[in-house]
Amino acid sequence: MTQPSAVGGLASSVAGHEVTVDLGLRSYAVAVGSGILTSVGPRLQGLGFQGRCAIVTNDRVAPLYGPAVLASLRSAGLDPIVIEIPDGEAQKNLTMLSTIYDRLLAAGLDRSSVIIALGGGVVGDLAGFAAATYLRGIAFVQLPTTLLAQVDAAIGGKTGVNHPRGKNLLGAFHQPRFVLADVETCATLPRREFLAGMAEVVKYGVIRDAALFHDIATHSDAILAQDRDRLVAVVAACVRHKAAVVASDEYERSGARAVLNFGHTVGHGVEALTDYTRYLHGEAVAIGMVAAARVSQALGACGADVVASIDGLLRRLGLPTELPVPRAALVAAMTSDKKSTSGRIRFVAVETIGRTRLVDLSATEIVDHL
Amino acid sequence: MTQPSAVGGLASSVAGHEVTVDLGLRSYAVAVGSGILTSVGPRLQGLGFQGRCAIVTNDRVAPLYGPAVLASLRSAGLDPIVIEIPDGEAQKNLTMLSTIYDRLLAAGLDRSSVIIALGGGVVGDLAGFAAATYLRGIAFVQLPTTLLAQVDAAIGGKTGVNHPRGKNLLGAFHQPRFVLADVETCATLPRREFLAGMAEVVKYGVIRDAALFHDIATHSDAILAQDRDRLVAVVAACVRHKAAVVASDEYERSGARAVLNFGHTVGHGVEALTDYTRYLHGEAVAIGMVAAARVSQALGACGADVVASIDGLLRRLGLPTELPVPRAALVAAMTSDKKSTSGRIRFVAVETIGRTRLVDLSATEIVDHL
Repeated sequence: MTQPSAVGGLASSVAGHEVTVDLGLRSYAVAVGSGILTSVGPRLQGLGFQGRCAIVTNDRVAPLYGPAVLASLRSAGLDPIVIEIPDGEAQKNLTMLSTIYDRLLAAGLDRSSVIIALGGGVVGDLAGFAAATYLRGIAFVQLPTTLLAQVDAAIGGKTGVNHPRGKNLLGAFHQPRFVLADVETCATLPRREFLAGMAEVVKYGVIRDAALFHDIATHSDAILAQDRDRLVAVVAACVRHKAAVVASDEYERSGARAVLNFGHTVGHGVEALTDYTRYLHGEAVAIGMVAAARVSQALGACGADVVASIDGLLRRLGLPTELPVPRAALVAAMTSDKKSTSGRIRFVAVETIGRTRLVDLSATEIVDHL
Repeated sequence: MTQPSAVGGLASSVAGHEVTVDLGLRSYAVAVGSGILTSVGPRLQGLGFQGRCAIVTNDRVAPLYGPAVLASLRSAGLDPIVIEIPDGEAQKNLTMLSTIYDRLLAAGLDRSSVIIALGGGVVGDLAGFAAATYLRGIAFVQLPTTLLAQVDAAIGGKTGVNHPRGKNLLGAFHQPRFVLADVETCATLPRREFLAGMAEVVKYGVIRDAALFHDIATHSDAILAQDRDRLVAVVAACVRHKAAVVASDEYERSGARAVLNFGHTVGHGVEALTDYTRYLHGEAVAIGMVAAARVSQALGACGADVVASIDGLLRRLGLPTELPVPRAALVAAMTSDKKSTSGRIRFVAVETIGRTRLVDLSATEIVDHL
């Protein structure tokens, strides 16, 4: 399947952006800007929320942005509790979910309440899954504070937790009521995490947007320096792509959403084989994207130039691109991924920068082409 | 809100019935009949399911119906595992859900797999919640083997588990692909459980169907003797009502679905105050329905004759109707119910047999009117 670019390049506007994820009754806005985190209270008030609510956050983000978000909620007449969890992927499990349920019930949140996810992907996935399943589903909003969450995890309604057998194996689709992507929060991100987020930014360029890809290459210094206007434009471009893909395939059924997994098949395998400790998700995806490009080349889907330009841009952004594990070990690691259907993997191959196609391959065939 | 009867009385047909729950893309059939349990395999095959699947059942039902269901699935080319849990409401918790996840993953069920719930409400709620959240949602079907589950729990997509703070506090809406209500399974039900199921049957009469109510009264001996044709007709009538209510309010938002809670506000309170051990759910609902009728009379919504006829029919069916707990204790027990919104309870009052209205009351006001 070919995925042409529908919404390309960086927007020229410098002010904030508002992108709609068009899902009928479940449609919502993703606001992208600088310093917009404190609009959360008035926005919730505008949607009619009042009384008890819960902020789910972690112990790294809470001291940085908790006070401002709390003040915004209180000034809008809301009465928040704060559920603070330890930072890190290790928290994304059923035990922590159960702890969150306990806190929500103890605080008396009811069906009209809202949960505010303030943090990265782990916080968003956990808080979203709790919202999806508390009293059979209550409202939640996403305040992503990592670049990765802003361009990917916070948008699209995927929520869930990990299982010892694999990541994100338990979860639900549950769309947020809105998302506030405030790029100012990138300033407090560890450098390595910011760069890992850039891997997913590059991914949107590869799968849907040659202009974005080349803009990132041209302006990589400004982006790495976190120039605010440049960053808002980059994040907004990614959000538009994510919104368009999600709107066309909310439940990952038609195959349209599968394109977002570019680089993730091998990336997940690399993460699993290195115990999820050596690489950040974005770093593993960077490795996976170059691997996917190599497989695409071996399949005759693209030329060596495509592999080289993906590899080159990722290296310029300080990301790893070399496969750090034996090819043979990858086969088993990839087949345990939930995206497999009856042993076949829906592999996203790149044809040229900005265009992909889906190929059904076995894990062995993927590794053979690496 | 007035709830007139849309589909009334017992159908005259003796053969099986097929009722559609009309929910757009999530529509499904509820087959009601005698000896239809073994149609599960061919029906799943007809929907395109193949390979690995999982039966979730309990240790009381498994020896009775497990072999026939297994044979039906295998003859249709499916490869089932059996997840057998101990019988009883105490199993409906996050720990058992986690155990089910482990088994599903170990057996390699993927996104194209189906879960078959074979048992009563506990099995259906647990299996349905597992299906709702395994790999962010896979297909499931309901094979309810209790009268209560056949007329109520198996239809409508409510799934979930209990929490120490209350019943069904964690869960999701997830519709089955079809439901097979085989009244032959009622023959192996403990007598007390069958009668408890009749309480929910009477409820449909009270809230939507005067003809059904009077038919039950007229033919109570045949029904209590489990005359097959009579039972099929009664269950089918209830299923039609449940289907109509669910179709008009899938997510319990408009208030239409709230009518199904007739008798449940006080009923849940009674269950909670007696530690969920003294009464079966249907028995508590029987007590709750008479209590609700008394409150309705005190509010001027109905006359004493309505209270007397509900009380009389339930007694004839061998069900309890006297409030066994102090009125004062009920207040706290009812306010912890998740159906409360900001302290108010949406109370279903009866106007006449077959017609109800919703009244917003506090728990104190309900108890004051008892």
